Amino acid sequence: MVKGFTAGAVAAGLKKTGDLDLGMIYSSVPAAAAGVFTTNRVQAAPVVLSRERIRSGLCQAIIANSGSANCCTGEKGMADAEATARAAARSLGISGESVLVASTGVIGAPLAMERLEGAVPLLAGSLSEEGWPDFARSVMTTDTVPKIVSRRLSVGKKPCSIMAVAKGAGMIRPDMATMLCFVCTDAAVEQGLLSRMLRTACDSSFNRITIDGDTSTNDTVLLLANGRSGAQIETRPDAERFQKALNELLGELARMIVKDGEGATKLVEVAVTGAKTAPDARKVADAVAGSSLVKTALFGEDANWGRIMAAAGRSGAELDPDRVCIWFDSVQMVADGRAASPDAETRAAAVIRQQEFAITIDLQLGAGTASVLTCDFSVEYVRINADYRS
Amino acid sequence: MVKGFTAGAVAAGLKKTGDLDLGMIYSSVPAAAAGVFTTNRVQAAPVVLSRERIRSGLCQAIIANSGSANCCTGEKGMADAEATARAAARSLGISGESVLVASTGVIGAPLAMERLEGAVPLLAGSLSEEGWPDFARSVMTTDTVPKIVSRRLSVGKKPCSIMAVAKGAGMIRPDMATMLCFVCTDAAVEQGLLSRMLRTACDSSFNRITIDGDTSTNDTVLLLANGRSGAQIETRPDAERFQKALNELLGELARMIVKDGEGATKLVEVAVTGAKTAPDARKVADAVAGSSLVKTALFGEDANWGRIMAAAGRSGAELDPDRVCIWFDSVQMVADGRAASPDAETRAAAVIRQQEFAITIDLQLGAGTASVLTCDFSVEYVRINADYRS
Repeated sequence: MVKGFTAGAVAAGLKKTGDLDLGMIYSSVPAAAAGVFTTNRVQAAPVVLSRERIRSGLCQAIIANSGSANCCTGEKGMADAEATARAAARSLGISGESVLVASTGVIGAPLAMERLEGAVPLLAGSLSEEGWPDFARSVMTTDTVPKIVSRRLSVGKKPCSIMAVAKGAGMIRPDMATMLCFVCTDAAVEQGLLSRMLRTACDSSFNRITIDGDTSTNDTVLLLANGRSGAQIETRPDAERFQKALNELLGELARMIVKDGEGATKLVEVAVTGAKTAPDARKVADAVAGSSLVKTALFGEDANWGRIMAAAGRSGAELDPDRVCIWFDSVQMVADGRAASPDAETRAAAVIRQQEFAITIDLQLGAGTASVLTCDFSVEYVRINADYRS
Repeated sequence: MVKGFTAGAVAAGLKKTGDLDLGMIYSSVPAAAAGVFTTNRVQAAPVVLSRERIRSGLCQAIIANSGSANCCTGEKGMADAEATARAAARSLGISGESVLVASTGVIGAPLAMERLEGAVPLLAGSLSEEGWPDFARSVMTTDTVPKIVSRRLSVGKKPCSIMAVAKGAGMIRPDMATMLCFVCTDAAVEQGLLSRMLRTACDSSFNRITIDGDTSTNDTVLLLANGRSGAQIETRPDAERFQKALNELLGELARMIVKDGEGATKLVEVAVTGAKTAPDARKVADAVAGSSLVKTALFGEDANWGRIMAAAGRSGAELDPDRVCIWFDSVQMVADGRAASPDAETRAAAVIRQQEFAITIDLQLGAGTASVLTCDFSVEYVRINADYRS
């Protein structure tokens, strides 16, 4: 529970399945608002609208739909996003300008506006303090589980809460949130600080995951702070405590997103140490975490370290093949560029059969480190994405 | 047939299957030699050795094996590559320095040197003018068909021939040959010109294909010219004629490699026009041709142009979403960033059911163009690569 916030969802008929597909979050008072949006040059209408509106720094409601991304839909799409916000505002008796919009689903398909607008009054009626699970379900696409996390903490000696909901599953790669995430807190946070804290939390969470290397046109992370708990973030220790909680919550969601990656059966951390620079470490981590050949080997539970070496070698990072060391959890596979020991593969077999483990790559060149979460690439991933629209 | 060249292969027991796995090409006289090698920082021992040896500009034999890449094998791997060349030279009665070596297969696995060296005399005995198909089969890994092309042309009024053999199937992406290719001609070409012509031909063929975005540690393209036809390339028109033939042959092989991509069911050309610059066009072509989401949609025969828009948008190229146009062959799917017509998807369904077609993307910003060949991403690709070593 987050004071002053309610959430809800309805099935508006936007998904063919008849599942929940339209969700709403409402704050009883205008809240300070911050957002992080996709870096893709192709941006959905709701992204354009919400990015523009959030400049005011205030927001009172969010309306989100699955079923259509409302992207590549031209002027009609912009008008539809605006009309969606208007309908939400009308049903809540607030100003249209204070509503943010988010969409996810098929690109290019227009929003079924008649159904959507018809469902909004019911949606507003569904709002409740217990509505978060329904809201989380309404933004799911290929996700198999809803993703909600929350935390209570004390700020200025008063308790406050943070609640965060996300959806993921596909079109997920680092360098942007690459999914939808909605964070609400009843702490009071000044808007400039709120924006900085959200960006920091995204950098250490959503920007360190990859599922398939594609960046969505609709990625949106929104953070609302309505101050209704009476807890106010003013001192540096309070800000640090809040930042830590926010980092942890978004970190948990990022993990949940990769774990629920389309068709994924494994969650693997690719940790790089000893790179010449931090950007070099990131290049290696990204190349290995994103390699189709590494990811299919993970699916096959094959400790094929040669593919890791090959991906690291093409990453563009400074690298001396004869110094590279690789571990699967604590089992060393590669020592100075060669097979570490004759029985390493046998011992690694037990590691790679686990659902979660870490691949550590030490380049032995410097102090640069980076870490990326990835999943395996399964037969099911292909099936899901070959049939997504049918 | 290429005058003065013979080829052959044996099953040395390097492949578990018992198939041909050791091949040889021999020129009755020392030939001018040129090579293009992987850009991966991790390079197999045979790549290091052949790159070094080709500096002399002369070569008389090539020995190639499948079954092990002899990569990440340390000093032992270098010694094995040298011993392989030595064994070949001994069996042919030529200098060890004039033998080039190429390997393909699992990274990290050592060469079974006893078997290999034991098989070399038999291999030398297998050499014949009709040995090319066997040689082509001996370098196959996950390839399903051998890849050989040849051409006769006239240079300086004399007939000459070019014969080219390649293997591909996985770890294939642009910016390097990303496979093994051996080209032999009985024309006489000065070594400097030979190198320039080979690089030009690679740029327009092997550097314009992608299967899975991974760059192999073993990529090698070798071109030998022994002059035995008596045809000599001296004039500019002759050089142009030869270059054209070489481009066409390597272009054919590149096509064959993508068509035989691991698990591939479709061969798709991604052509970008109207980019602000040629590098921008290449960025868009690479992003679309390499997108897992685009490639799985191709496998599912789903004309999901939204994924093409999303991939183009994250490519880093200058792009105005509202100007982008997309065609599947001659069916326009997207006009100025939006669905071109209500029945476009229906008409595109017939296009995408074909085994070969083109996706054309016009950015309407400038004169930059680029084209990349790709294949679809199938359930079978995952199966092949999950089980590759087992």
